[in-house]
Amino acid sequence: MIPENHPRRESLIIREKVVKALEDGYLAPQGLIAHGRGECFDYLIGEKTQEFAMKAMKAAIAMLLLAKNPVISVNGNMAALVPDDIVRLAEEINAKIEVNLFYRTLDREKKIEEVLKRAGAKEVLGVGDDASAVIPELFSERRRVSKKGIYIADVVLVGLEDGDRTEALVKMGKKVIAIDINPLSRTSQMASLTIVDNIIRVFPKMISLAKEMKKSDKDELQKIINQYNNKEILKESLRFISERMNQLSLSL
Amino acid sequence: MIPENHPRRESLIIREKVVKALEDGYLAPQGLIAHGRGECFDYLIGEKTQEFAMKAMKAAIAMLLLAKNPVISVNGNMAALVPDDIVRLAEEINAKIEVNLFYRTLDREKKIEEVLKRAGAKEVLGVGDDASAVIPELFSERRRVSKKGIYIADVVLVGLEDGDRTEALVKMGKKVIAIDINPLSRTSQMASLTIVDNIIRVFPKMISLAKEMKKSDKDELQKIINQYNNKEILKESLRFISERMNQLSLSL
Repeated sequence: MIPENHPRRESLIIREKVVKALEDGYLAPQGLIAHGRGECFDYLIGEKTQEFAMKAMKAAIAMLLLAKNPVISVNGNMAALVPDDIVRLAEEINAKIEVNLFYRTLDREKKIEEVLKRAGAKEVLGVGDDASAVIPELFSERRRVSKKGIYIADVVLVGLEDGDRTEALVKMGKKVIAIDINPLSRTSQMASLTIVDNIIRVFPKMISLAKEMKKSDKDELQKIINQYNNKEILKESLRFISERMNQLSLSL
Repeated sequence: MIPENHPRRESLIIREKVVKALEDGYLAPQGLIAHGRGECFDYLIGEKTQEFAMKAMKAAIAMLLLAKNPVISVNGNMAALVPDDIVRLAEEINAKIEVNLFYRTLDREKKIEEVLKRAGAKEVLGVGDDASAVIPELFSERRRVSKKGIYIADVVLVGLEDGDRTEALVKMGKKVIAIDINPLSRTSQMASLTIVDNIIRVFPKMISLAKEMKKSDKDELQKIINQYNNKEILKESLRFISERMNQLSLSL
């Protein structure tokens, strides 16, 4: 369908994946709107992993390797875009995988479980009755999590997450690592650590980093975390976008 | 559903409109992704009509008032967001209304015609066999237009349009006025005149401007057009975004 030489080929292929996920019934329509916002921000950061994202990923992997109970929280967009990589990263860092949806329905949960199992996941938490624990301060179905997963987690990796839930998890004392290409979102601001980059590029890089950094000792990992400053990273990303927009205005 | 005091209430209400349009079957899933990109850029320009958009709207109305055969080209996103305003603006400037879809199906065309007729439109071009003329240099269904509308138009107002089609219309010698909140899109770059603003805010302002500027004589209108420089307007919008991102980085 998409010509080989189309200048936006990669972006269009990714777009087809989320449209397919909508048609398959595990991505809510709002997930497509969120994807569009992401496309825009990806363009703003030059559709490449920038230095501020590399630094955040290193600190994120350090945090995940030192965690007692790390969990990767999965929603429809993530399942549509990086199902295999979710499973591979979870294996590398010994993390649980939990389905956690903003628009929760049992049908969507089960379909995402299926996608992840097809990608090789042995256990998928947060589906149906497993999501029986409750996150305080959140309303409706969004607060339901697994007792074996997010509820007892010390570090939670979320992608394209909602700001309120990120805040609620942080208030529960959890460290939240957010993959969010929008540095201005409430999630980005609330998270303990924000990776401002496209989730498509983040997962393969995190997997490589995990393989490499596993060999480091705990003190080294702790040092990386101590030296990390999320506010500075967010500032750096905004300055990068500002500078890029200025450059583009000059080249018009 | 959406709390009265939600900080992003207006944006969420608009979001519900496009989700509804998807459910009603006249907006393609890709339209939701496009909407998401728009949300992002709206945030970047401060969710307000800025000076660069006001200048472009004035020149656009001058162009439309001087046109012999102005046409408003309507797609799914526009029908979802501003159906009444499309009809009102068309009345003010004596323009035809034509349905023109990227993902053309007879079902979608008819549904959009219905939405526009419900909003008061007397005539809606480009539906079914009416779209029998062909725009050169475009493939597939996208090139079909109405002989009574876009095919003979001298000025075409498009919203959230695709870059290839904008380019094809310009090559046919038509003046294309694009409402596109992304100043970097190919549509924005290709159009004769680009209004970098949210279509929700653009239509009411264009209607007021039309009422007012109708009283001006032709020379005055022509002068506004002559003084207008689209490249400068696009640069101004990028500089604005750049400056705003820089300010936001300082306030973090």
